[in-house]
Amino acid sequence: MKATVEPIRWHGDRLELLDQRLLPDQTVYVTCRTAAEVAQAIRDMVVRGAPAIGCTAAFGVALDKGSKESFAVLAKSRPTAVNLFWALERMRKAKDLKAEAEAIFAEDLAANRAMGKLGAELIPKKARVMTHCNTGALATAGHGTALGVIRSSKNKSISVVACETRPYLQGARLTAYELMQEGIPCTLITDSMAGHLMSRGEVDVVVVGADRIAANGDVANKIGTYTLAVLAKRHGIPFYVAAPLSTFDPKIPNGSRIPIEERAADEVTGYRGSRWAPEGVKVRNPAFDVTPAELITGIITERGIVRKPTRARVASLLSRSPAGAASGRRGRR
Amino acid sequence: MKATVEPIRWHGDRLELLDQRLLPDQTVYVTCRTAAEVAQAIRDMVVRGAPAIGCTAAFGVALDKGSKESFAVLAKSRPTAVNLFWALERMRKAKDLKAEAEAIFAEDLAANRAMGKLGAELIPKKARVMTHCNTGALATAGHGTALGVIRSSKNKSISVVACETRPYLQGARLTAYELMQEGIPCTLITDSMAGHLMSRGEVDVVVVGADRIAANGDVANKIGTYTLAVLAKRHGIPFYVAAPLSTFDPKIPNGSRIPIEERAADEVTGYRGSRWAPEGVKVRNPAFDVTPAELITGIITERGIVRKPTRARVASLLSRSPAGAASGRRGRR
Repeated sequence: MKATVEPIRWHGDRLELLDQRLLPDQTVYVTCRTAAEVAQAIRDMVVRGAPAIGCTAAFGVALDKGSKESFAVLAKSRPTAVNLFWALERMRKAKDLKAEAEAIFAEDLAANRAMGKLGAELIPKKARVMTHCNTGALATAGHGTALGVIRSSKNKSISVVACETRPYLQGARLTAYELMQEGIPCTLITDSMAGHLMSRGEVDVVVVGADRIAANGDVANKIGTYTLAVLAKRHGIPFYVAAPLSTFDPKIPNGSRIPIEERAADEVTGYRGSRWAPEGVKVRNPAFDVTPAELITGIITERGIVRKPTRARVASLLSRSPAGAASGRRGRR
Repeated sequence: MKATVEPIRWHGDRLELLDQRLLPDQTVYVTCRTAAEVAQAIRDMVVRGAPAIGCTAAFGVALDKGSKESFAVLAKSRPTAVNLFWALERMRKAKDLKAEAEAIFAEDLAANRAMGKLGAELIPKKARVMTHCNTGALATAGHGTALGVIRSSKNKSISVVACETRPYLQGARLTAYELMQEGIPCTLITDSMAGHLMSRGEVDVVVVGADRIAANGDVANKIGTYTLAVLAKRHGIPFYVAAPLSTFDPKIPNGSRIPIEERAADEVTGYRGSRWAPEGVKVRNPAFDVTPAELITGIITERGIVRKPTRARVASLLSRSPAGAASGRRGRR
C-alpha cells in the first residue's frame, strides 16, 4: 500500500520535507541538511503531526551525526508531542544513527497500518466518521493514525466529516486533500458546526489522533478535540483516539501535567497574508487541549485497543509483550 | 449613552447601512433606496444580527411605501431570525409607515438598554465573560443584546473572551472591534479553544444573543452557540441568552421546528478572497444551531429574566403586562 502523499523523503545526506503550509495549493519540498534546519522546519510547521515530528527529528539527529547540539536544538522545537522526545531518546542510545532513524520511520508506518486494521473493526459497516485536524499520511510516516483507521475502512460505506481545525486549518487543507486524493467522501465543516451535526444525528463515530497520552489515559491533542469529546459524550457517540505507542508518556501521571504549547497571535488574527481581527487585539492560542480519559471510548494502538482507558489498562498495554499484540506483528523492538 | 458605531442611518428617503463585511478595516456605508436593495443588503450580510435585521426590514417597507412586493422580497431575505417577520408584521398593520419603522428602531434601542441594566445584575463584580458572534451596537439599533449586558457591566472588573465565530468571523471582526472601541479588555480565541479555557477555569459566565426563541425556551443562535452551552453545562458555568421580546416566536413549539439557514460553501472553504480548502470539496454551512432550554441558566429580556426557561415560564413572561416589567419602563406598546 503506497501512501498517496510523501511528507518525508530521506536521502541519507539530506531530508526533504513537503511544505505543508502551502498545501493544498502548492507541492513544494524544503531541503534540510542540518539538525538546526530540521528543528526550524518543525517549529515553523513545514512538517507537523506527532509521529511525523518524531521521524523528522530522528533524521535531523542523523544529519548532524548525533552531535550534542542536534539533540538540544531539536528538543526545543515543539513542546507537546512526546513522539519528538521519544525519538530523540532512541537516537541517543543508537549506535548506527541512520539505521535507527530509518527504523523509527519504518516502524511508524507499520504501526499505522496495524492501527488501521485494528481500528477498522470499530467502524460500523455504514458510518459517518467525524475527525479533527490531520492525522493522515502527512502527519506520520505514512497511512496515518485516525485517518489510517478511516483509510483502512475504505471497503465499508463510510463518509468523513472533517472539522476545519482553526487556527491552522489542517482539517480544511490537509485532511480534505488526503481524503479527496483517496476517493473517500468528505464533508468539510467549521469546528463550531460539530455540535449541530451531532444533535441532528449526522455523526456515528469520532476518531482523532493524539500528541501525548498520560499514564491514566488522558489525551493531549489538537485544540478543539476536548470539545468534540464532550459533545460526543452528550450524544452517546463513540469517541476513539488512534495513536502509536510512541505517543504514550507513562512518566506523566495525568493530562494536567502535559505541557501545552501556546503559539503566535497571528495564527488567530488571520490566516496567511490576510488579517481580519483589529490591530492590537489580545489573543490566546493554545495549540492543544486535554481530553480526560473518562470521555474516551477506546485508544487504538498497534498493540491493541485500550477500551475505557484507566491507569491500570494503559499500564497493562504498555507492559504487554509486543509478540502477544493483537495486531499479530512480531519482533518489533 | 451614544452607540460607538452606527450600523443603521435613516434619512427618510434613504437608508444608509454600514457595510459590516468590510469591518474592521474599512468604514463604508451602502445606500438603499428601495426594499429590494434593503433585502439584498440583508441577504449579503451588509447588515446582520437579528434585531438589526428587523429594524432594517421595517425601513425597507417604509422606503417602498408598504408595497406588496416590499413585504415579499424582504420576507425572503433570510429565514432564521424571527425579528424580521415580527417587524414585517408590525409594518403590515401600521398606518404611518415611517413613524412605525422609527418606533421599531427606538424601541429596540430602549429594549437593549433595559436588558443591559437587568443583565448586568447577573454578571459578577469580577468576571471573565465569554461571548459568541456579535451582539453589539452593530447587531441592533444600538447598545446590543449580549454585548449590551457586557457594556452595562463596564463599571465592574470584567474582561471578555470573544469567540471568533467561524465561518463569518463576527467575533474576530466585529465584537473585538466594538470592545476595543469601548475600552473593555478583550481576548480573541478560535471557537475550538472555548472548551480548553473553560476546563482551565478561565471563564466565569457565558452570555450570547438569539435569532429565534421557541415557546419552550429553546434558542436558535449563531452556529457554535450550542457547543458553548454544552461545555458551560459540563463546567458548571452560567449560560445566559440576552434577546428582546421581538426574538420570541410563540408559534414555534420547540427548537427542532426553527428553520436553519444553510449558506454558501465559499464561506467555509476560505474567507473573503482567499481560499484554503481543496477545490471541489463538499461543505456544510448551517448558519445557526439550537440550544435546548435545559442548558440555559436564564433568558434576559427587556421585560425581565426567565430563569431556567420552560414553556410555562416563557408564556408567563410574554403574557405579563409591560407596565409590570422588571425594567420599570412603561407605556411600551
